[in-house]
Amino acid sequence: MKITFLGTSGGAPTSLRGLSAVAVERGSEIIMFDCGEGTQRQMSKAGLNLNKIEKILISHVHGDHILGVPGILQTLSLLNRERELLIYGAEGIIEFVKAVRRTVWFNPTFPIFVEHVKEGLVCKEKDYSIHTSLTDHVLPGFGYALAEHVRPGKFNPKRARELGVPEGSLWSELQRGENVTLSNGKIIMSKEIVGSSRPGRKIVYTGDTRPSQSIVQLGKNADLLIHDSNYDEDNIEMAEKKGHSTASQAAQIAVEANVKKLVLTHFSPRYETTDLMLKHARAIFQNTIVAEDLLSIEIPFQKNDSG
Amino acid sequence: MKITFLGTSGGAPTSLRGLSAVAVERGSEIIMFDCGEGTQRQMSKAGLNLNKIEKILISHVHGDHILGVPGILQTLSLLNRERELLIYGAEGIIEFVKAVRRTVWFNPTFPIFVEHVKEGLVCKEKDYSIHTSLTDHVLPGFGYALAEHVRPGKFNPKRARELGVPEGSLWSELQRGENVTLSNGKIIMSKEIVGSSRPGRKIVYTGDTRPSQSIVQLGKNADLLIHDSNYDEDNIEMAEKKGHSTASQAAQIAVEANVKKLVLTHFSPRYETTDLMLKHARAIFQNTIVAEDLLSIEIPFQKNDSG
Repeated sequence: MKITFLGTSGGAPTSLRGLSAVAVERGSEIIMFDCGEGTQRQMSKAGLNLNKIEKILISHVHGDHILGVPGILQTLSLLNRERELLIYGAEGIIEFVKAVRRTVWFNPTFPIFVEHVKEGLVCKEKDYSIHTSLTDHVLPGFGYALAEHVRPGKFNPKRARELGVPEGSLWSELQRGENVTLSNGKIIMSKEIVGSSRPGRKIVYTGDTRPSQSIVQLGKNADLLIHDSNYDEDNIEMAEKKGHSTASQAAQIAVEANVKKLVLTHFSPRYETTDLMLKHARAIFQNTIVAEDLLSIEIPFQKNDSG
Repeated sequence: MKITFLGTSGGAPTSLRGLSAVAVERGSEIIMFDCGEGTQRQMSKAGLNLNKIEKILISHVHGDHILGVPGILQTLSLLNRERELLIYGAEGIIEFVKAVRRTVWFNPTFPIFVEHVKEGLVCKEKDYSIHTSLTDHVLPGFGYALAEHVRPGKFNPKRARELGVPEGSLWSELQRGENVTLSNGKIIMSKEIVGSSRPGRKIVYTGDTRPSQSIVQLGKNADLLIHDSNYDEDNIEMAEKKGHSTASQAAQIAVEANVKKLVLTHFSPRYETTDLMLKHARAIFQNTIVAEDLLSIEIPFQKNDSG
């Protein structure tokens, strides 16, 4: 699972930072968190295939989080995409997409499914689920957690043969965690042959938000938390007023949610450098980094007893 | 008058080329020809002040020509702009801007005037006028000509004193081209003191179009013609089908319109290089260049007898 930051500026773009968008590559698909203006070009610069996008998750309908959607719909139509595209988002996203389809002159070559999300499960796929929680912004907004399902432990065929388990349905039962009885009456425990189940990876994206306990819950034990860091401590009142977080506040959420790694993003264009933000955040949560446009991060699987 | 190309790709952006937008700096204002996705960021890269934009002229409502407008409206509101912004464009632009204001969550801090243009005069300012003509695309589209008014000749105060014209209202009359009679009965001709009138500069932007006689008329004697060059000769049938021009066709229009300089732009992403396009165009019209993102061109005044 690879995360690429396509835009890391808050509100307005700068020459160095585009507008909010994060691409999650997982297997053959790309899942987007937000889609600010310029996303399709940033994907081109990152070498990401636009047509691999399966889902776009919109945190809220401020322009800097949604204005990249129309261009992607037009370009995917130029590319003659046929596969459905799923867009999930906060209240207003359905009206926005409808308005685009009515007033921008292009013929979609593929079905576009758009849905307003509610807290809880957004979608459940074979290998992962996406959940959402309300954030605390100046308009209704949602954070998203993409969590892979727990994977069953590794089956050890050599050990199965040593214990005299014939290949076939008994192997499947053992793999599913069931204990089995051989024809000679011997009972074989699943855990003798199958390693411990392996946790999936979990990444969480907040969109724009004040520090929020719902994000702490959504982010519990995540491998990666991508958190609003629009301001530094010098503008903590402004952060409260505008519905954003400071770098330190983001770090405090990372501590409370017990995440492995924190990425700060969505920086106000007033900051020429993020050095101080990073320093302030690391004083609270050491494993913090600052997002830059086109930064990519690989999320490794967590190790457990079975290796 | 300085022209900056902010996006030079056709249809979809590439890593090297953004979507259609041209900024014309004239005095303290900026006039935009089209405004594709990513324009506000390109302006930042070009060091252009977003808040200097007074007018946006939209050729047609394909997404790659209009999707930069919403972000500019949002960012100008973040900047607390108060001055009215004028948007002129082809049919559909009013509905598009209305749809954006209804579905993208931001509070405009300034009046937005949007108007559908018809062939002829778009607006007449103190120093220049903008005219428009229908183009020949797959949907209603307009090209624009920005032409400065003829400027009166230079007044020569030394010569006025030599001829005994007292400073004051007589000077104004002479400057306006009127002949005057001095108190001693002597007649002074305006042309004795005021140089020849000086032509203004004229630039023409086509937007997307097949070769069109209406563009030849609109572009007559222009200092600069910015012409659709979506395809090279290898795709001349495609150009006809999709409502675009080839580089050679653009050059032929430049010849017929007797322009001083031609800039090719709006290149299909299928072309990795524009070298051949440039070669083909120059074979027909020598003073041709290829637009690149962030290329700037100064348009000099034409010389005349009075220097």
